[in-house]
Amino acid sequence: MDATATFTSTDRTLATRYRDVRQFSETLAAPLTPEDCTVQSMPDASPTKWHLAHTTWFFETFLLERQPGYELFEPQYRVLFNSYYNGIGERFPRPRRGLLSRPSLEEILDYRHHVDDAMAVLMELDETIDSRTRQIVEIGLHHEQQHQELILTDIKHVLCQNPLRPAYQRSPRAVASGWIGNGHDNSIVRSAISPDWVEFDEGTYSIGHGGTDFAYDNESPRHRVFLESFALASHPVTCGEWLHFLEDGGYAQPSLWLSMGWSTVCDQKWNAPLYWFPWEDQWWLHTLAGSRPVDPDEPVCHVSYFEADAFARWAEYRLPTEAEWEVAAAGQPQTGNFVDTLLNADRALHPSAVPVGNPRPRTLHQLFGDVWEWTSSPYTPYPGYRAPDGALGEYNGKFMCNQYTLRGGSCATHSTHIRPTYRNFFPPEARWQFTGLRLAREV
Amino acid sequence: MDATATFTSTDRTLATRYRDVRQFSETLAAPLTPEDCTVQSMPDASPTKWHLAHTTWFFETFLLERQPGYELFEPQYRVLFNSYYNGIGERFPRPRRGLLSRPSLEEILDYRHHVDDAMAVLMELDETIDSRTRQIVEIGLHHEQQHQELILTDIKHVLCQNPLRPAYQRSPRAVASGWIGNGHDNSIVRSAISPDWVEFDEGTYSIGHGGTDFAYDNESPRHRVFLESFALASHPVTCGEWLHFLEDGGYAQPSLWLSMGWSTVCDQKWNAPLYWFPWEDQWWLHTLAGSRPVDPDEPVCHVSYFEADAFARWAEYRLPTEAEWEVAAAGQPQTGNFVDTLLNADRALHPSAVPVGNPRPRTLHQLFGDVWEWTSSPYTPYPGYRAPDGALGEYNGKFMCNQYTLRGGSCATHSTHIRPTYRNFFPPEARWQFTGLRLAREV
Amino acid sequence: MDATATFTSTDRTLATRYRDVRQFSETLAAPLTPEDCTVQSMPDASPTKWHLAHTTWFFETFLLERQPGYELFEPQYRVLFNSYYNGIGERFPRPRRGLLSRPSLEEILDYRHHVDDAMAVLMELDETIDSRTRQIVEIGLHHEQQHQELILTDIKHVLCQNPLRPAYQRSPRAVASGWIGNGHDNSIVRSAISPDWVEFDEGTYSIGHGGTDFAYDNESPRHRVFLESFALASHPVTCGEWLHFLEDGGYAQPSLWLSMGWSTVCDQKWNAPLYWFPWEDQWWLHTLAGSRPVDPDEPVCHVSYFEADAFARWAEYRLPTEAEWEVAAAGQPQTGNFVDTLLNADRALHPSAVPVGNPRPRTLHQLFGDVWEWTSSPYTPYPGYRAPDGALGEYNGKFMCNQYTLRGGSCATHSTHIRPTYRNFFPPEARWQFTGLRLAREV
Amino acid sequence: MDATATFTSTDRTLATRYRDVRQFSETLAAPLTPEDCTVQSMPDASPTKWHLAHTTWFFETFLLERQPGYELFEPQYRVLFNSYYNGIGERFPRPRRGLLSRPSLEEILDYRHHVDDAMAVLMELDETIDSRTRQIVEIGLHHEQQHQELILTDIKHVLCQNPLRPAYQRSPRAVASGWIGNGHDNSIVRSAISPDWVEFDEGTYSIGHGGTDFAYDNESPRHRVFLESFALASHPVTCGEWLHFLEDGGYAQPSLWLSMGWSTVCDQKWNAPLYWFPWEDQWWLHTLAGSRPVDPDEPVCHVSYFEADAFARWAEYRLPTEAEWEVAAAGQPQTGNFVDTLLNADRALHPSAVPVGNPRPRTLHQLFGDVWEWTSSPYTPYPGYRAPDGALGEYNGKFMCNQYTLRGGSCATHSTHIRPTYRNFFPPEARWQFTGLRLAREV
Repeated sequence: MDATATFTSTDRTLATRYRDVRQFSETLAAPLTPEDCTVQSMPDASPTKWHLAHTTWFFETFLLERQPGYELFEPQYRVLFNSYYNGIGERFPRPRRGLLSRPSLEEILDYRHHVDDAMAVLMELDETIDSRTRQIVEIGLHHEQQHQELILTDIKHVLCQNPLRPAYQRSPRAVASGWIGNGHDNSIVRSAISPDWVEFDEGTYSIGHGGTDFAYDNESPRHRVFLESFALASHPVTCGEWLHFLEDGGYAQPSLWLSMGWSTVCDQKWNAPLYWFPWEDQWWLHTLAGSRPVDPDEPVCHVSYFEADAFARWAEYRLPTEAEWEVAAAGQPQTGNFVDTLLNADRALHPSAVPVGNPRPRTLHQLFGDVWEWTSSPYTPYPGYRAPDGALGEYNGKFMCNQYTLRGGSCATHSTHIRPTYRNFFPPEARWQFTGLRLAREV
Repeated sequence: MDATATFTSTDRTLATRYRDVRQFSETLAAPLTPEDCTVQSMPDASPTKWHLAHTTWFFETFLLERQPGYELFEPQYRVLFNSYYNGIGERFPRPRRGLLSRPSLEEILDYRHHVDDAMAVLMELDETIDSRTRQIVEIGLHHEQQHQELILTDIKHVLCQNPLRPAYQRSPRAVASGWIGNGHDNSIVRSAISPDWVEFDEGTYSIGHGGTDFAYDNESPRHRVFLESFALASHPVTCGEWLHFLEDGGYAQPSLWLSMGWSTVCDQKWNAPLYWFPWEDQWWLHTLAGSRPVDPDEPVCHVSYFEADAFARWAEYRLPTEAEWEVAAAGQPQTGNFVDTLLNADRALHPSAVPVGNPRPRTLHQLFGDVWEWTSSPYTPYPGYRAPDGALGEYNGKFMCNQYTLRGGSCATHSTHIRPTYRNFFPPEARWQFTGLRLAREV
Repeated sequence: MDATATFTSTDRTLATRYRDVRQFSETLAAPLTPEDCTVQSMPDASPTKWHLAHTTWFFETFLLERQPGYELFEPQYRVLFNSYYNGIGERFPRPRRGLLSRPSLEEILDYRHHVDDAMAVLMELDETIDSRTRQIVEIGLHHEQQHQELILTDIKHVLCQNPLRPAYQRSPRAVASGWIGNGHDNSIVRSAISPDWVEFDEGTYSIGHGGTDFAYDNESPRHRVFLESFALASHPVTCGEWLHFLEDGGYAQPSLWLSMGWSTVCDQKWNAPLYWFPWEDQWWLHTLAGSRPVDPDEPVCHVSYFEADAFARWAEYRLPTEAEWEVAAAGQPQTGNFVDTLLNADRALHPSAVPVGNPRPRTLHQLFGDVWEWTSSPYTPYPGYRAPDGALGEYNGKFMCNQYTLRGGSCATHSTHIRPTYRNFFPPEARWQFTGLRLAREV
Repeated sequence: MDATATFTSTDRTLATRYRDVRQFSETLAAPLTPEDCTVQSMPDASPTKWHLAHTTWFFETFLLERQPGYELFEPQYRVLFNSYYNGIGERFPRPRRGLLSRPSLEEILDYRHHVDDAMAVLMELDETIDSRTRQIVEIGLHHEQQHQELILTDIKHVLCQNPLRPAYQRSPRAVASGWIGNGHDNSIVRSAISPDWVEFDEGTYSIGHGGTDFAYDNESPRHRVFLESFALASHPVTCGEWLHFLEDGGYAQPSLWLSMGWSTVCDQKWNAPLYWFPWEDQWWLHTLAGSRPVDPDEPVCHVSYFEADAFARWAEYRLPTEAEWEVAAAGQPQTGNFVDTLLNADRALHPSAVPVGNPRPRTLHQLFGDVWEWTSSPYTPYPGYRAPDGALGEYNGKFMCNQYTLRGGSCATHSTHIRPTYRNFFPPEARWQFTGLRLAREV
């Protein structure tokens, strides 16, 4: 797959990874009722059932239905679970996905297993499997990992529409012991915005994907950019810092905002990040593990590009470009709070407060995991980029308009699904992802 | 309850009726999955779960929560399942009812049984139960019967949004033996529109509810109206007659339509009744028991007021007023195809074709059951009407605007929930109810 | 013209009336600039230029273009100035009328005179003019008088969108001498709502047009109705009474309102009649003659049906039916404040305060002129009504849906354009007409 | 004015330029009627009257009202003619500008002259005028020149809504002699897309404004960018080439389009550039000088970014970045077809066909004037950009979101209002400006 992705893998690894990734989707759905899995809370989000089916449709459509002798599980699923591939044909309209009470969750799990069985047979044929097939399996798995993150962000949005405020996670350790234990009082703004800075020299750098590991087409080609010297904050912006912005009237001063951002603030009556709510003289937030007071030490989350940009202007700094971010991230250890590490530790799926103690000064923390970091870069094709031919060419390129790139992954991203060159993208008004920010400045 | 309703009943009957009516709601929900019960397909319709909970909320709110010692099942349900009673307080917004994955169907059934148990205790207290309580129980039961009809019309709408076209009823006799058995060919229009007519003399008649049985407040007071002589068709308009209209370009001639009706036809691209679709050179329709060809002998159904009015104009007749309909219906036997009679006979919940053979000429058939019949009468208060005080006064009066009355009940109405004075009402564009029409003319 | 209208007239009168009526439209437009005449402030209203052209189009389309040898002034006007006649063909979309900077006001006046010249020739042919032609001229003149009222209400709406609040009339006597002279203080509610009542006996009455004078088709046929005994208030509701309602929280109590009315109040943030505004501790209103404080003695105006209905419920009375109004009005002198009488007296085009002094008690005042009075009657066809054939049949019948009838004419109606059987109609949310109300009650 | 703009000028020049620029606005409005000047055809466009007033308001608000003794012409204009400056205060809502029939065109011209007189006095004070004042005058003049272009594009949109299709220019030479004379047949696609290319080497270039002449703040600071080697087409894309795209189904192949672009094509039913229409087997277009057949040799115009991007993809090339365009334009002669040169020559205000004969091969033509050229660069701040303080800081920076930059000016731009560093910007769906494109490719 010359254009969409490049990667290396062995078949044994692939089959194992296939099983692991596919299983993880079902693990994420396990705490949910059939009713939870059916609801669509807004056109931008999809029901869990739909995610479970669409990721399966991907393998069936791009691989299995081309295999001689393969029988479609249900021919109507071809339309029902096509997301946006004009090249494949008709699609059931996205805003109506929540109207599909059938197929049931159970039938969709059957569909998954039907496809998994056929995929297992396909991948057993060690000798004859061609590299194109391997590539599509690999894309399918990364595709599924993207939807795993969406399963979490979309169900969080569903559950938060409900005045009963049900939790996705019942009793993770983080909620029981975390915030309440550390005795913070979030009604006090503890400090102004004075991050530690890590500096980088001016120069012509190369960014973008250049190796043979898997990467999406939108990360290529690797190319040169000239950067003036710059500095990045050592940590993402915290809720404590955000409270400062909020209490300084940040949501009420048009001069801090982009024009479209200010319109959105006024129309949507935004006065805090999504999922924040005032209660008994404090700001609280809804998490996947239930509601609790805002922790001033945790990275702020569920803010739009508009808010991130306004905050940076208020703080008299700016957001980094995606080139700056990538240059800074190159060579950094890719550790952090990811969905798999958090679940394994029975912790809440939420950005984590900076650990108490002595973080090394002047190094970059929490670049990976916790929150996706908005960059100031619109999502555009890299110089020389050309979308692959065929329906899979619709994967990335056609969305390069009116969106901004985000970097680094979040607490809902799988640790095997991130890299320094990874480009996530959302429109500037989107808030339901785990999105935060890190400040930058000129040197 | 002087204003809202008048009725007589014995406590024993009431407790029995309570059990029967409440059980029937659950019987109607039984064929549905938890996912089915969660979906809301349009703002005008509600999820099955919501209907099951709201009817329960009615008893809890208007009766139980005033009983000393009664504990609310869940205090937040007070807001969640309030439909439109400003007098009770806040309400969860109607168009968002489909976002509530929780409470689950199971929890709502628990809620029902919790309330049923408390109601049983209340109604056992034979001696002390006051007449106001009896009246509210009675209203609550009729209220629940209204929602039973909505459960069916709303789930029909949900299932018909789904390209898989799932059936609510699996294999009722009517589908197996009905249409196919009678050998009709619906591609042939069999006759022009020449109904048998039943005539009535001019005069000053009394209409409206006057007795001591239960009736809604909107059926009162009984009052005099002057009617010119008129005639009603012996039968509701059939699908065969509708095909005639359709093939004569009825949906393409603006001169047949009210101005608002014609706008709706153009905007919504109406070209046949709701749930009709062309397939292999025939018109088919979706029913609760699955899809099948249109039967020319069955009453046409799922037509709006706009369509009923246009059809009547095309046929060079008119719709009856509600006074004419009621005068004609007074004293007629109240038999017909109702939800309970059809289910008991394992037949499809759909209007039934006129029985083959020799219907008595010049008498009124299918006045009750099968299809609600649109009248030309806007839904207005009767002379002297005054809505009852308190929240229950919001039941009917505040909706007397921009709606038309319908008479006679349908195949989704319970046989114990209809009477000649019963006034149903819907806006002129509504089509998802079992709504048809009967022609009238001057004499 | 059997169906649309019946009337008698002499040709000489007709030609004279034609000149007078046509001239009056231009008189009404005279105070306006070309820019004023171009603006459309909402889809329901039309630019003055459009009214001037459309009324001319009516004569050209329904009469002149059928005359041998007549040349259309400009063929594209056939589409441009067709309002809603599907029978005539295509129409320029109503909400876009304000986009037509051309033809200029001057060109439209030329168009008028071109048509007037041709009409003069036509009407000179005294001998040969047939009765159908006479009827259409007559309809055309009444049609133009309706648009004369709309010219005033629509331009009032345009001018009131403008923060500069320009006046249509420069300095009519009424503003100079009227309100300020009488020393009222509208911040004091002077009395509760206790109208004088005029009573009428129960009985079977005939209403509707029955003679040979001109009337619209919707006033026919004359027919019998049964009325219980009732009483009408001697005067329309005044602004003083409305202030009482307003200060009692009338706009904040959902229980007073129809459900659709309450939604409108909330969505539109209504808190007073249209054109009222608070200023320096008083309520003021915009009139065609400029802004001034509300006069408690003048009839309230620019209220919707929703508001009229809520007021009546608050006052514990009701609105009259149109049959009651017509029975009461039959035989009453048809005098009052009309557009022509007010202009002749150089008075403001606004409802007038009740004259000081001793009005005869217990008789009906201001039935005609001043304000259109909302009735509780939806606008429906009279028994036996059938719209005329052809495009003119679209004049009235197709609008009989979701509107309410109003009676009696207003200060913007011409005195020759009203009669007791006249049925005006608007949707229940409309407020930009000169609409008020009169209370009724059972006896 | 350190941040918004830098420039040098002498006072004498400034006063002269002031008179010239101000006069030119009135020259542009001269062919229009008062009605033309009043209409607003869509929220994005403004009435001519509004442009004439707002440009005057700019001088009054940012300069005169701070002068001791200056009297506002009309205090309410402060709100009425504020466009989007939150820092100045309230604004009359943009989508409602077309509702303002008053002030009349005449009054607005009086307003202009009132302000011009005061400005003349201000600029006479040669000695005392400070540099900040000079800078604001200069910005005000460039601001007015921007609105001059909008006067033309907005009135073109108004006139094209009118089925009468009035022309702005009565009989310019270009329409009389241009297309018809050259005997082209636009139904034949004359060649595939094979532009002549002009190549540029890779390297680190500096772009952005660096001198002391006037430039907007968004052109600064001058900064370095790394560019791979690239080539630009010698000419803008022509209508003949566009016909090729169109006839090849360019508007019907989703794979050519950005996802948002394809949605727009489907929703808006785009099938050709704005103002094109089929007539008698040919494509015609509306121009400011009337309607005529499309000339295959003229640059295509009134295409959105979405269309430009799709065309480039179809042609298997791409759009240039703004850095590439600027690097290529640096040092090129700044000649071309501008509004002033075209009007002086009595030619149509429309992009001109490539002159017949022998254009120099391999050089860049029509870089300036004729059509704004879409670049692939989202409109973002240059590295180190910071919006100026105060209300004038709202001029550019707050619009840097979801827009693309355009370069080079158009046939509606004044020749004194363009430079290689000039950044125009519009959303990707905008088509009512004179927008075209030039192809680029990798080398």
